[in-house]
Amino acid sequence: MTLKLGMVGGGQGAFIGGVHRMAARLDGRWELVAGALSSDPARAAASAADLGIAPDRSYSDFAQMALAEAARPDGIAAVAIVTPNHLHAKVATAFLRAGIAVICDKPMTATLPEAEELAALAAETSVPFVLTQTYTGYPMVREARRMIAEGAIGAVRHVQVEYLQDWLAGPVEQSGQKQAVWRTDPGLSGEGGCIADIGTHAVNLATFVSGLGVQAVLADLTAFEPGRRLDDNAAVLLRFDGGAKGMIWASQIAPGTKNALRFRIAGERGGLAWDQEDPDLLEFTPLGDTTRLLRRGDGLTQTPSRIPSGHPEGYLEAFATLYADAADLIEGKGLASTRALATAEDGLAGMRFIRACVRSNGAGGMWTAA
Amino acid sequence: MTLKLGMVGGGQGAFIGGVHRMAARLDGRWELVAGALSSDPARAAASAADLGIAPDRSYSDFAQMALAEAARPDGIAAVAIVTPNHLHAKVATAFLRAGIAVICDKPMTATLPEAEELAALAAETSVPFVLTQTYTGYPMVREARRMIAEGAIGAVRHVQVEYLQDWLAGPVEQSGQKQAVWRTDPGLSGEGGCIADIGTHAVNLATFVSGLGVQAVLADLTAFEPGRRLDDNAAVLLRFDGGAKGMIWASQIAPGTKNALRFRIAGERGGLAWDQEDPDLLEFTPLGDTTRLLRRGDGLTQTPSRIPSGHPEGYLEAFATLYADAADLIEGKGLASTRALATAEDGLAGMRFIRACVRSNGAGGMWTAA
Amino acid sequence: MTLKLGMVGGGQGAFIGGVHRMAARLDGRWELVAGALSSDPARAAASAADLGIAPDRSYSDFAQMALAEAARPDGIAAVAIVTPNHLHAKVATAFLRAGIAVICDKPMTATLPEAEELAALAAETSVPFVLTQTYTGYPMVREARRMIAEGAIGAVRHVQVEYLQDWLAGPVEQSGQKQAVWRTDPGLSGEGGCIADIGTHAVNLATFVSGLGVQAVLADLTAFEPGRRLDDNAAVLLRFDGGAKGMIWASQIAPGTKNALRFRIAGERGGLAWDQEDPDLLEFTPLGDTTRLLRRGDGLTQTPSRIPSGHPEGYLEAFATLYADAADLIEGKGLASTRALATAEDGLAGMRFIRACVRSNGAGGMWTAA
Amino acid sequence: MTLKLGMVGGGQGAFIGGVHRMAARLDGRWELVAGALSSDPARAAASAADLGIAPDRSYSDFAQMALAEAARPDGIAAVAIVTPNHLHAKVATAFLRAGIAVICDKPMTATLPEAEELAALAAETSVPFVLTQTYTGYPMVREARRMIAEGAIGAVRHVQVEYLQDWLAGPVEQSGQKQAVWRTDPGLSGEGGCIADIGTHAVNLATFVSGLGVQAVLADLTAFEPGRRLDDNAAVLLRFDGGAKGMIWASQIAPGTKNALRFRIAGERGGLAWDQEDPDLLEFTPLGDTTRLLRRGDGLTQTPSRIPSGHPEGYLEAFATLYADAADLIEGKGLASTRALATAEDGLAGMRFIRACVRSNGAGGMWTAA
Repeated sequence: MTLKLGMVGGGQGAFIGGVHRMAARLDGRWELVAGALSSDPARAAASAADLGIAPDRSYSDFAQMALAEAARPDGIAAVAIVTPNHLHAKVATAFLRAGIAVICDKPMTATLPEAEELAALAAETSVPFVLTQTYTGYPMVREARRMIAEGAIGAVRHVQVEYLQDWLAGPVEQSGQKQAVWRTDPGLSGEGGCIADIGTHAVNLATFVSGLGVQAVLADLTAFEPGRRLDDNAAVLLRFDGGAKGMIWASQIAPGTKNALRFRIAGERGGLAWDQEDPDLLEFTPLGDTTRLLRRGDGLTQTPSRIPSGHPEGYLEAFATLYADAADLIEGKGLASTRALATAEDGLAGMRFIRACVRSNGAGGMWTAA
Repeated sequence: MTLKLGMVGGGQGAFIGGVHRMAARLDGRWELVAGALSSDPARAAASAADLGIAPDRSYSDFAQMALAEAARPDGIAAVAIVTPNHLHAKVATAFLRAGIAVICDKPMTATLPEAEELAALAAETSVPFVLTQTYTGYPMVREARRMIAEGAIGAVRHVQVEYLQDWLAGPVEQSGQKQAVWRTDPGLSGEGGCIADIGTHAVNLATFVSGLGVQAVLADLTAFEPGRRLDDNAAVLLRFDGGAKGMIWASQIAPGTKNALRFRIAGERGGLAWDQEDPDLLEFTPLGDTTRLLRRGDGLTQTPSRIPSGHPEGYLEAFATLYADAADLIEGKGLASTRALATAEDGLAGMRFIRACVRSNGAGGMWTAA
Repeated sequence: MTLKLGMVGGGQGAFIGGVHRMAARLDGRWELVAGALSSDPARAAASAADLGIAPDRSYSDFAQMALAEAARPDGIAAVAIVTPNHLHAKVATAFLRAGIAVICDKPMTATLPEAEELAALAAETSVPFVLTQTYTGYPMVREARRMIAEGAIGAVRHVQVEYLQDWLAGPVEQSGQKQAVWRTDPGLSGEGGCIADIGTHAVNLATFVSGLGVQAVLADLTAFEPGRRLDDNAAVLLRFDGGAKGMIWASQIAPGTKNALRFRIAGERGGLAWDQEDPDLLEFTPLGDTTRLLRRGDGLTQTPSRIPSGHPEGYLEAFATLYADAADLIEGKGLASTRALATAEDGLAGMRFIRACVRSNGAGGMWTAA
Repeated sequence: MTLKLGMVGGGQGAFIGGVHRMAARLDGRWELVAGALSSDPARAAASAADLGIAPDRSYSDFAQMALAEAARPDGIAAVAIVTPNHLHAKVATAFLRAGIAVICDKPMTATLPEAEELAALAAETSVPFVLTQTYTGYPMVREARRMIAEGAIGAVRHVQVEYLQDWLAGPVEQSGQKQAVWRTDPGLSGEGGCIADIGTHAVNLATFVSGLGVQAVLADLTAFEPGRRLDDNAAVLLRFDGGAKGMIWASQIAPGTKNALRFRIAGERGGLAWDQEDPDLLEFTPLGDTTRLLRRGDGLTQTPSRIPSGHPEGYLEAFATLYADAADLIEGKGLASTRALATAEDGLAGMRFIRACVRSNGAGGMWTAA
């Protein structure tokens, strides 16, 4: 049986809503039946019609939607929140209070206090809350996590993550490009620019794969583009629980890079390296031996996926895996540790990371607890 | 509005049916509402229930399904044929005759005469017939086709295609592995082994991208695995209309390769190279200039896709594009030339290619018209 | 002690002579002390002076040089022949007859009869004759040869070689470019163009690594550039002794390729792949296991080299290894089988390969004994 | 005419001396005629004999050698210093005072005071002093430097350098491996381990290519291997003159890496990326355009090299280029800015970098002037 999904945000002209819908559809576990797709009633209705949502389940007010859907016997099992970031907290709160599971795009909230409240509410209500940390849905990322947890490379020593893009090189926001405008506006994005938008993915990946928590950060944040009010380049040193070290270079002004998220991990008995733009491959080197190319779906690696090795899976498949896992979670099936979905606690950790980086940077570069 | 889809084959335990369903779902253009998922009634019913198909639209007989669906006012707009190959012709014939569009997995038929009859029927009925030549759904394959058509590399001189796998290295069929058993059995697969299973993809890709027809082939086919009755390795020389040359190495016994489908094309004014295992990238070299890395979705290439550059799309997205194109075709929307779906004529060309290769090989290596 | 080297050809303005000199110098095993660097006496003398060759050992006539050096107590131990191809046979003959070892650039001769005579003379005189098949000097090529000889991939089934360049795309010879002029002139290069210039390297690499002889070839040779009199693109099917198959695509009109010599070998129990433009790496896949990246100098591979893994060695080092091996050979030290230098017999095999390809092509594509 | 070279250190059993000799030989500009190859007289003499050095020019005392060679009419033009690091300063001082040019392996000295004295002496004497910062000899590194100097990527914003090795993962020094023993001993290597051994190469590369000086560093140094007394992993943040930022990850405990020195530079109008293990390639992306693959020797790039594109040059060629440049320098030929050899000032900068990193780390991570 498919689960019923609602969506807040994602109306005509929006981007990430479409990605969530493709992800939700891929495995046939979800059916989109309700939505508050826009705060503009006409646009909400038109968007709902495009998507085959019945008129009586198209809402223009998310609070009303939460109440109405909670009251229906055939109400939605979960809501996908794909609004601008500053609305995430309010929308999530409404649905959690209504007892409806939340699948929330990242970052979880715009501010740290909001994140703290939301994490507390999620804990209090015990309603499932899933943050779509997309990159943790890649099979070879999960394979790496599993391998490290099982000791394949021994204790982790250094975790290096790069997350590079080039779309904010140049004064893009001045041309009115919508994605650039809100991402460079502290009023809409909060105190972090690049460090929030992609730095949080980098640190989440580091902790997800290594299994280690971040103890402290030291950040050097720069807004290179003249007039830009939020950082577009971030250099961060990390100290993990237990003594491991790490570095993140996150940049949105690195020409020639598109979505270059990569990690290399040095452990005491081996190393692992992965690149999001070639996601089916994981390089594994046991100490003192040759490097092996582990491939998704090759019958030798253990993390399940949809199609055999050599038939590339990509970003949408990783995203879809989060939706499939969320379906299992909501249906009460247990998730293996490598399928650990990001929770409100993880979202809060991400907001704390941003806060710590901004504070460290503001202090001229000081180690700051994360 | 979504289009209604039926499926023949693809019941519990089958593989390619699930791939078609994911592909059909991704863009939300199709809804699976009917099926003859198995010739075994109990299995058909159970499979239908799994997929949310209403009991009255679950059939165990495809011929009955064709008639019943054609008669319903809410009947299916198209049927996906995902049976074993030797049934393709019969099933497709039933649905074409019922006036229902066909989306058929490749190869089109098991024998050349069947392919000739089916192509004639498709022409006669004018009912849409789509062969899922998956690799032509990749955006950068279409970009290459567009570039060549527009003269970016001048006249094509040489087209090199490799299609390498290793899953048939070793006596796999003797262990009862189902995929291996039927692919190495002339009774189920016809006269071609590797040349039919993947060689046809290679030649289809060559002609799709270059825009050139194959005039003649010269093939050296080998069954390396002891006791194997169909070729598992194929070396083919090609001559295209207009004087271009080409080569195909197709192998299913090349250790270290998974689904290594690649082309390199030399034109009089430039070159192109593409690798299915890294499908978002297209290497383009204008003669006398540096090589450029063209990337799907980067705002500089012209073929549309779903998500931005750096967020990998893969095999399922390419497959889904064929389903989206098929939806447009059935809805009467025109398709641009780069979206040209494979037709029954293309399927027939593939069967002629197999025949020509087998004859050339049988003659000890003679140029044979394709 | 260093060995004394002479050189015929390679005067001011020449190219390959300088490569031989760098190769001879690198390991300090050779000292250039004599030369007939040009047939023009003034240019010979000036070239000799540039290179620090004493005036009394600068010759303008190679025959005289052979006699004079043979008569000296401190005469040269070997001569490097780096003249245009059509002179190789005459020069080599003079020095072999004088009892002086020959290190000859490839191809060995311009014609097959010359090659036959020279091979016979080398056999008769037992004077060392080394043909500089450069690519066999790469450590990872030798590692591959060793591995195959020791059974690492079982019996060889298919050998695929590509050798691609783009420098002859376009009517380069019409602009007077010297390298292009002689390579496209049957009077200076013999009956083969691309098939002789680089195809012979490809087939030599195939046989060197696989340890198999070529039984027959089937070639499709094309001169794509208008007005060109020798082939610039060659598609060749191979049959090896013992039943292995192979293919060579050699092209000098493939835009975007520089010196793209690569092989992939499928064996019954594993596969190997190598690329001359990334020569320190060898991909090895045991059947049913993950691909391993073998690296030159990493302490795990067995073929010796000069510097540790990660410090790239290249073309000149491979060439220098031939000179070092030649020194060992002349000094009477045995060579391990993986260091097997190409002999006059190998040069003759190369000439026979050209002949067979040209004949096969002339017959419209027939299997022809090699 | 060749220049006469002497060598101090590099006797039988040593490693880097042999590399210097190959580098000096490759282009035929130098002849090794004198040496104090070992402080042990017997070993010095035997080593000299191996290398064809006349007995009267084999010394066991470098100070005596400096005086004797300076006094000879045919004395050496330069001395190569390849002793253990702690002797560099003394040897260099002796030869500079004798008026003999110095080609010194890096690091320049073991301590900062020594470096300051040596730099002062070099300035005072005006005798040429060349530090072999090998990686600056790579043609594509020089091409990058030239491009940046000419504005190809606009103002530099971020310089990322990784230098990764794995040979010190595990307690290698406890097994007595000679290279590991001295590199992990503060008494022989000074206060820096990895940061000194390879971090200095990384920072030198960053400044050479970007043309920017390092203003301040912030370092997190770790000795991960139990009992190791010097850092084996270094995470460093950089601030350059003019506002550019940077990061270095240098590690000798990163399994799967051999000599992985790479940079990526983000400029306001473009980006560049290079990898020492694939040194003939330079990725260049003009802002808003496709990435181009610049290749050494392809006729489109401007930095000279020895052999054409596609014929790999490597580490020894880069090293040899420093020797060829040193010959030009000593012969009074001017060097273009892209051939700028590292001087004693550069060596001093490297020692200051080590000092600053160690101090920054000692202070718990503080920005420290470099």
